[in-house]
Amino acid sequence: MYDIAIIGTGPAGVSAALTAKNRNKSILLLGRKELSGKVLKSHKILNYPGLPGIAGEDLVKAMQRHLDDMGIEITAEQVTNVYAMGDRFAIQCAKEMYESKTVIIASGVMPGKLLPGEEENLGRGVSYCATCDAALYKGKQAAVIGYSPKEEDEAEFLAEMAEKVYYIPVYSDEIRLKGSNIEIVKGAPREIRREEGKSVLVLEDREIISDGVFVLRDAVSPGQLVPGLETEGAHIKTARDMSTSIKGLFAAGDITGTPYQDAKSVGEGNVAALSAVAYLAEAAKS
Amino acid sequence: MYDIAIIGTGPAGVSAALTAKNRNKSILLLGRKELSGKVLKSHKILNYPGLPGIAGEDLVKAMQRHLDDMGIEITAEQVTNVYAMGDRFAIQCAKEMYESKTVIIASGVMPGKLLPGEEENLGRGVSYCATCDAALYKGKQAAVIGYSPKEEDEAEFLAEMAEKVYYIPVYSDEIRLKGSNIEIVKGAPREIRREEGKSVLVLEDREIISDGVFVLRDAVSPGQLVPGLETEGAHIKTARDMSTSIKGLFAAGDITGTPYQDAKSVGEGNVAALSAVAYLAEAAKS
Repeated sequence: MYDIAIIGTGPAGVSAALTAKNRNKSILLLGRKELSGKVLKSHKILNYPGLPGIAGEDLVKAMQRHLDDMGIEITAEQVTNVYAMGDRFAIQCAKEMYESKTVIIASGVMPGKLLPGEEENLGRGVSYCATCDAALYKGKQAAVIGYSPKEEDEAEFLAEMAEKVYYIPVYSDEIRLKGSNIEIVKGAPREIRREEGKSVLVLEDREIISDGVFVLRDAVSPGQLVPGLETEGAHIKTARDMSTSIKGLFAAGDITGTPYQDAKSVGEGNVAALSAVAYLAEAAKS
Repeated sequence: MYDIAIIGTGPAGVSAALTAKNRNKSILLLGRKELSGKVLKSHKILNYPGLPGIAGEDLVKAMQRHLDDMGIEITAEQVTNVYAMGDRFAIQCAKEMYESKTVIIASGVMPGKLLPGEEENLGRGVSYCATCDAALYKGKQAAVIGYSPKEEDEAEFLAEMAEKVYYIPVYSDEIRLKGSNIEIVKGAPREIRREEGKSVLVLEDREIISDGVFVLRDAVSPGQLVPGLETEGAHIKTARDMSTSIKGLFAAGDITGTPYQDAKSVGEGNVAALSAVAYLAEAAKS
């Protein structure tokens, strides 16, 4: 059982981890080895105080060095759900489940909007985690919408099980994904429907009929991640101390709303960590 | 007339200035040449993301370099009052008055509490600005409570006018202040009273009777700085977007409340600046 589980390794998650560790809490930092794809892609950041005109790549390196310095390791797992269990949280990942007394969600904001039909058909052919559900697709067909190149690995893994995988890349990078049972289909996704036990993925100029559609984004919508959490559109509703509608659950960074700025994120991560520390102290008394 | 006036050169003020400048706003940054005495004194800061274990002195240098890089200059004036004038603000300093469409207060939190009798006697013998009121003390006696060594200059300036200056240092640094009409008095201030046209400053083991008491802190209480501003104790009440109870006035950093952390301050400075930018855009439409 951890004191504080932090979901996300962007500036908010890193900041929360540094402050929580500094307060001698046991922490679980769940995220990506490359920390933040978004920061990594920033050409030049002009307003991160103290690091004038730093390239995104260099800011990521500086943050990694900071984590190393403090002896903080990243657990590279994708979180699929967080369940509030009263005095603790269960954090369901693709491979394992973890338990923590408090949780800080700093998983970034979902790029773009939900597809029409996506939310309604969640669990009815729509899935967010290929690693989790691949086994269900043995001998079946699946469509995979990938929002970044890293999703190609997920699609490849799925293709080892499934009979056929349609891969729809929603990015402009070069596609490296290959396989005899993989078909790359270009075209912007428009809608997901469920018809006669099959999933229909509507693209701008064709429809793909399969057994299920995987929507693979860097972040899922917060309401899907944490059942029962109060949200405002794509954002988690937070108070000034970064607390949310669920006790012991805090949020920080882009997921709490605009502006989407690194300085704002590190500030909120810091506050969320200290609020979690205060919550733990209060909980220990009762 | 400036677009955005920023009061304070700690991490919150610097962050606000960088972001506002980055958005091409005309800015007035009022503060101290040494940026932040508080950061400067920090031995080692462990949780400012990207700058592991940085000494306070080095963080100040990095911030100064960042300001230089962006061509931002500091106007080294002490702000005594901010007046909301409807569509703009008047910022009264010791020497000059400035006008700005918006204001961000990032002046830090007042160390300690107000002295009993301090607020009640403001303008009745109690003053916060020696440079402003020195002329009134020609041939008179004054007591000066200095909360940091830099106030010794203020006391010295006052002593050039006044007949006699009692200087009560509330810090442990060496006292360099000297003068034939200056008396250094040690002892913690307890209360300020007004009796028969004289000010009585009560120390732990003696009373000083003079024509007026100067209370010189790094920061004044926000309610005194901005008449009519909604506060919560020593802090300015702010919303998630760092707006205050006065339209066009924003706040960031320690003055908005705990935690008093550099990361939190830079985050709030960033948000306050962008909220001021949004406010200016909205105001330009109407």
